Amino acid sequence: MAGKLSGSLLEVAMLLFLIFLLACGCAAMTGWLFPTGEWYKGLHKPDWTPPNWVFPVAWSTLYLLIAFAGARVAAIGGPGATTALAFWALQIAANALWTPTVFGTYRLRLGLGVIVLLWIAVLGAMIAHWRVSTLAGVALLPYLGWVTLAAALNAELIRLNPNERR
Amino acid sequence: MAGKLSGSLLEVAMLLFLIFLLACGCAAMTGWLFPTGEWYKGLHKPDWTPPNWVFPVAWSTLYLLIAFAGARVAAIGGPGATTALAFWALQIAANALWTPTVFGTYRLRLGLGVIVLLWIAVLGAMIAHWRVSTLAGVALLPYLGWVTLAAALNAELIRLNPNERR
Repeated sequence: MAGKLSGSLLEVAMLLFLIFLLACGCAAMTGWLFPTGEWYKGLHKPDWTPPNWVFPVAWSTLYLLIAFAGARVAAIGGPGATTALAFWALQIAANALWTPTVFGTYRLRLGLGVIVLLWIAVLGAMIAHWRVSTLAGVALLPYLGWVTLAAALNAELIRLNPNERR
Repeated sequence: MAGKLSGSLLEVAMLLFLIFLLACGCAAMTGWLFPTGEWYKGLHKPDWTPPNWVFPVAWSTLYLLIAFAGARVAAIGGPGATTALAFWALQIAANALWTPTVFGTYRLRLGLGVIVLLWIAVLGAMIAHWRVSTLAGVALLPYLGWVTLAAALNAELIRLNPNERR
């Protein structure tokens, strides 16, 4: 079954897409609950830090791709699909945790631990999705790239702001 | 394949259990990041409100059951397993969102919306897990009961504290 998505599965895939998109919406809402405020503004940042407006644009695009990847793998099914979805679940939980950790409690060090876990989860998800569907795997590639950047930014914020001890 | 878990699948199930348990750990960590403090203490509460110590005990037990249910369904696989895991992913994302919403930003009304979404996700997960494995479905029954109680408590907190407008 792997690798192809027949037309008859398309309706099921659409419903699955909505469920996965709702899950992404939960993670996205943490960004709205804990916006980058004065604390983040006052931090020393590396000169390659993306401007603030880039983050919601990037995440909106990524969440659509993430929901697409999950729905495609779930609709195709077959061996490996459930392992891929276990990693999908882990990445969305770690994703939803990172923003409250950093922008809700200002814990950069714990945030780095969370985003390393997220990075591992996304890598695992990408590999496992790729085995079921090349397209689903490719759809997670920008996510891995972005989380790599975000993890590097988190690490740099720790290095550049030694007085931020949490 | 539904309903039985062969011995050879047990090792795979253990690895899947660890992935799902890590996802639960992310949701659990929000409770540690945003403990119930003075704000919650000062709210008017219904007389059936569980004492504070009950919550971490209940959640620890539930997270083990939730991870077990996901791992069992993922290990058994077959038709319906991926739909069950889509709901699994949605419940953990909504679960991780609720605590920061209520205890991080004191938004009882938005929190009620989140826990209603969580309730629907848990119901969907329970039904979908049950179809793959009776045991996995039963394992989610206490979760549905607990979220029902938590949703009722959230609604009562809104009713009893009309000055809490968020």
